[in-house]
Amino acid sequence: MKLNQIIANIKPIDPEKLASAHEHSCALAIPPLALGRLHELGERLAAIQGTLAPRVERRLFLVLAGDHGVAVEGVSAFPQEVTGEMVKNFLAGGASINALAREAGAEVWVADMGIIPDLDPGTSGGQLFINRKVARGTANLAQGPAMSRAQAEQAIMTGFELASEAIGQGVEMLGAGDMGIANTTPSTAIAAALTGRPLEELVGRGTGLDDPGLANKRRVIARGLEINQPDPGDGLDVLAKVGGFEIGGIAGCVLAAAHHRKPLVIDGLISTAGALIAHALCPAVAGYVFAGHRSQEPAHQAMLARLGLEPILDLGMRLGEGTGAALAMQVLGGAARVMRQVLTFEQAGVSQG
Amino acid sequence: MKLNQIIANIKPIDPEKLASAHEHSCALAIPPLALGRLHELGERLAAIQGTLAPRVERRLFLVLAGDHGVAVEGVSAFPQEVTGEMVKNFLAGGASINALAREAGAEVWVADMGIIPDLDPGTSGGQLFINRKVARGTANLAQGPAMSRAQAEQAIMTGFELASEAIGQGVEMLGAGDMGIANTTPSTAIAAALTGRPLEELVGRGTGLDDPGLANKRRVIARGLEINQPDPGDGLDVLAKVGGFEIGGIAGCVLAAAHHRKPLVIDGLISTAGALIAHALCPAVAGYVFAGHRSQEPAHQAMLARLGLEPILDLGMRLGEGTGAALAMQVLGGAARVMRQVLTFEQAGVSQG
Repeated sequence: MKLNQIIANIKPIDPEKLASAHEHSCALAIPPLALGRLHELGERLAAIQGTLAPRVERRLFLVLAGDHGVAVEGVSAFPQEVTGEMVKNFLAGGASINALAREAGAEVWVADMGIIPDLDPGTSGGQLFINRKVARGTANLAQGPAMSRAQAEQAIMTGFELASEAIGQGVEMLGAGDMGIANTTPSTAIAAALTGRPLEELVGRGTGLDDPGLANKRRVIARGLEINQPDPGDGLDVLAKVGGFEIGGIAGCVLAAAHHRKPLVIDGLISTAGALIAHALCPAVAGYVFAGHRSQEPAHQAMLARLGLEPILDLGMRLGEGTGAALAMQVLGGAARVMRQVLTFEQAGVSQG
Repeated sequence: MKLNQIIANIKPIDPEKLASAHEHSCALAIPPLALGRLHELGERLAAIQGTLAPRVERRLFLVLAGDHGVAVEGVSAFPQEVTGEMVKNFLAGGASINALAREAGAEVWVADMGIIPDLDPGTSGGQLFINRKVARGTANLAQGPAMSRAQAEQAIMTGFELASEAIGQGVEMLGAGDMGIANTTPSTAIAAALTGRPLEELVGRGTGLDDPGLANKRRVIARGLEINQPDPGDGLDVLAKVGGFEIGGIAGCVLAAAHHRKPLVIDGLISTAGALIAHALCPAVAGYVFAGHRSQEPAHQAMLARLGLEPILDLGMRLGEGTGAALAMQVLGGAARVMRQVLTFEQAGVSQG
C-alpha cells in the first residue's frame, strides 16, 4: 500500500460507538462516572475496537532509533555515540524502557531507523532488533533539509510496516519510544512548524543543557526553520526539512494504529512530534492515540494541545525511550478491564441511589 | 502484641538508606534524574526495604467494609443495604477493585469489619472473605460516639492482624480499600478533627449528593464534632468518636506496614482517613505510605498535606474500594524495577555528558 492510499483510507473513530460505550459506563455499579478519566479512556478504547469489551492485553513497544546531523551544533548535553551505546543497552535489557515495559507486560522491539553505527540484527536478551536504516544519521537541519522527501516517506512507511507486522502478530496496544542524541531539536522544530507557537515558549533543556546551551539550541532551531521554511500544510515536507528518521518511523506507527484500529500510546516530546507529523498528514489519527504522560519539555504541552490530547500521567519525567507511555499502559489496561469486567447495577444486584 | 507496643516499636525510614538510594538513582544511565518522581518513589521503596534492589511483585488489597449509623441522617446518595450488596459484588469479582487489582497483579482479600448483614466466610470467585465484624455498624456519630474506645482498638488490631498475616504469607506491597455507605461522613469528620481545617473546605458530595444534601452533610458532621469533641492529640479518641470500623481497620493495616517495613498504598478519602488515624498514633508511619491518587473529595488534599504525601495519579476519581491505589501500584512497581534493573553508565558502557 502507498502512503497516500493509507491516509485516504483512515476513518475517524465512530461517534455512535463512543456514545454506546458512554452509556455502558453510566450503567456500571458505581456512583455516576466515579472513575473519572478512566471512563473516557475506556470508552475510547471501546470505540477504537468496536466493542463494549475492549482488550489491550498483548502490548508491544516499538523503540525507534536515529542519529541527527544537527548534533554537531552542540545542541545536546551528551555525545552522539550515546545513540548507539543506548541501543546496545536496550538490546541487553538494561535500559529504563526495558524495566518499565516488563512492568507493563509489554514486549520491546528496537529498530535502527538511521543510527550511525551498524549493529548486528537478530534478537538479544529477549528484545528483537530490526535493521531498517534509512541512512547513517540525518543531515544538519541548521544547514539545509535533514533528509530528502523520499527518505521522509521511506521512514514513515518503515514505521507503518513495523507496526503493521506487530499488529498482524496479535498485538492489541502499541507504545512508541525513541532514542537519538539531539532529537529534542528536530522535535521542537516540528512543534514550532506545526503549532505556530513562538520558539521562546517551546525550546527546552533536553537531556540537561545549561543556559548558554539553551540559547544556542534556540538559535540553531530558529536558523533551521529560517533556512528550510517547512510548509505546515505538508507533514512530509516538515519531516523532511527539520525531522528525523525515528520521528518519521513513529509517524508511520501512528498511521498503522489508525489504519488497523488499534490504540497507540505516545510518550514525550519525540514520539509526540511523530504523532504530530501523522496528524498533519491525516487529522483522524488523533482518535487512536493516547498521551501517556506530560513531559517536562515545554514544547510537549503545545503539541498535545494541537492533537487535542490530555496526558494520563504527570510525573515530571523527561527521558523518552517510551518510559512514560509504558507507565500509562496499565491505566489503559485498567480502563479496558473496567469496560469489560465491571458489572452493571442490574447484573450485580446492587440498589441504585 | 499490644497496640502501644506496636506504636512504640515503629521506626521511621532510615535517612542514610534514602541517601544511598538517591546516589544510586544519580548513577543510572539516563540524563540526571530524568524519570522525575519515579526516582523519589523508588528511593523510598529502597529505604523501606533496606536494599538498592526493592521488589514489590507480590501485591495484595485489603478491602475493608463497615456500616455507619450516621447513614440514617441522609448523608449518602445510596441506601445502606448497598454496603452488603457491594461486598457480595467484590466476592463475585465484578466490582471495579476486582478489575483493577487484576490489572495490577494484586490479590484481593475482603473483610467484614462491621457491616450489618452476615455473609458466609470462605473464598468466593478467588477473593478471600474474612469475617472480623466488630459490631453491626457503628452508632450514629451525630448523636454520640460512633463506637467505644475498646471497639476502636479492636478495629485497629484487626487490621493490624490481617495485614500482618498477608505480609507473613510473602506479600511485598499492600493496598488499602474500603466499602461502607456513608463513610465519607466519618472520614471528613476525622479530617476536620486532625487537620484543623474548617468544614466549609472539607465536605464533599461523596457518591453524588445534591446541594441540599451537601448542606445537610455539613450540618451533620458539625453536630458530630460538637457533641463528641474528639481529641486531636489522641488518634484512638478521634476514631472512637467520629470514625468507622473499616477506617480503624485501615489504620491497623498502616501500622502493620510500618511495623513490618512494607510499602502500603492508600486510595481516596476513606483509606487516607485511616492513614491519618495511624499517623496521629505514630507519625513515623507516613514514610511507609504512598498516596495512590488525588481524589475529587475536597478533604483528601488536606489529609495528604497533613501526611506530607503527594499523590501519584490525578485522574478525577472518587470511587474508593482501593481503585486509585490499584492503578498506582504499577507506577510503584516500575519505580522498584528502575532501581533494581536499570544499569548505571558504568555497567552499560554508556558515555556521560
